[in-house]
Formats: sequence, structure tokens, C-alpha cells
Amino acid sequence: MRIRKFAISDASFERSPGQDGEVFAGNVIDQRHGGPITIGFGRYAPNQTLEETLAVHDVMVILVGRLSVSTTAGTVFAGPGEIVYMPKGESVTIRSYEQGADTAYVTYPHWQEASEAS
Amino acid sequence: MRIRKFAISDASFERSPGQDGEVFAGNVIDQRHGGPITIGFGRYAPNQTLEETLAVHDVMVILVGRLSVSTTAGTVFAGPGEIVYMPKGESVTIRSYEQGADTAYVTYPHWQEASEAS
Repeated sequence: MRIRKFAISDASFERSPGQDGEVFAGNVIDQRHGGPITIGFGRYAPNQTLEETLAVHDVMVILVGRLSVSTTAGTVFAGPGEIVYMPKGESVTIRSYEQGADTAYVTYPHWQEASEAS
Repeated sequence: MRIRKFAISDASFERSPGQDGEVFAGNVIDQRHGGPITIGFGRYAPNQTLEETLAVHDVMVILVGRLSVSTTAGTVFAGPGEIVYMPKGESVTIRSYEQGADTAYVTYPHWQEASEAS
């Protein structure tokens, strides 16, 4: 069937590209599957910082822990069950805290293809 | 700032269109905001059934409770922190159980525009 269910244990985590912190991403649906969006899980060790300029529109749902997302305009904090929307083109600093954090993410279009192209 | 954070309390829930069950959806980002994706929260009362043919690609993250999604090919069950991916064109029956359920969703393209067009 084409409907799919994923748990975080289905993700093969890899270090976020261009980063040396303990921040990992694991796609469960992406360009290999033929659709327009990438779906995955993110895992942040405690007290990590990730800086990036978004090559795609990125939606993050916090599953466990707490993250902040900062831009030059300010900072938002998000915890379990909350959503952070980061439109393409924004430059963000994402921080985890003592607990670390797990997230689910959806990007449009595929972030891996957009990263390779840039 | 263009980065946005949303909690389920930010959603204005409306009954899912074409349904008479106690199933509600509340967009927090959609066609009014200029981007390519819709983001929102879903709320299912206990023991509800929703049948639909997907006009868009739909990703559902279960925040609270448990849902099943059935097609002619089978059924998947999902609980807190799990993701269900429902590609455009699939016909699904979504069921909630004793606890009801809360979800976060992302669709591409905008489901409200796709529903109006069909």
C-alpha cells in the first residue's frame, strides 16, 4: 500500500550536512519515493547549535524536548506538540537545551536535492 | 519575523469539510500566507470515522491518542510521535479510538484550494 506509517526508530540518522554538532536527520520519505515532499525525523543532543540558511520550506514538529529558533528578527521557543515553520530563504540558528530534542520534519521541495544544488 | 511557532491552542478548529463526524481541522499556515504548503492541527473526538479521497499529499503527525488509516490494501495504526504519509489520490478511512486524537498536519499543495477545485 502507498499509505505509510513511520516511527522514529525507522529513521537512519545521519549528521546534518555541513555541521559538526550532534544534530542528526533521518529521512523516511524523500526524492527516492517519487513524491514532492521529504519527511523525516531529527535528533538533537543536549546543548547543540545548528546554523543554516533554508534552501527549502521546512516544518518542524517537536516531539520531545525543547528547541529555540532564532533569526535577526527574534527567537521562538517550542516544546512537545508545537510546530515551527521556517520558510525558504530564512537564516536560522536552532538551539537545543539540557534535554536534547526529537523532531518530525516535512520539507518542500526535497532538502537533499536543494542542498546539492546550492 | 517570518519564522513562526504554533501550538494547538492557535488553531481555529472547523469541522472537516464534507463530514458530519466530530473531526476538526484548524489551519495555522495556508494559501493566505503565500507559501506552497498548508500546516495545521487536527482534532478527533473518540470513536470517529472519516472517509476521504486525498486531493493533496498529506502528512499527519500524531500528537495525542491513536488513529488507524485504512485503504483497500490494509490498515496502519499510529500513536504519539508517529507519522502517517498519505499520498495524493489515495482513498482512506481514518478512525479514532476511545481516547480521541490530536494531530499536526502538513499538506502540499494547499488542501482547501484543492477541495474547492474538485
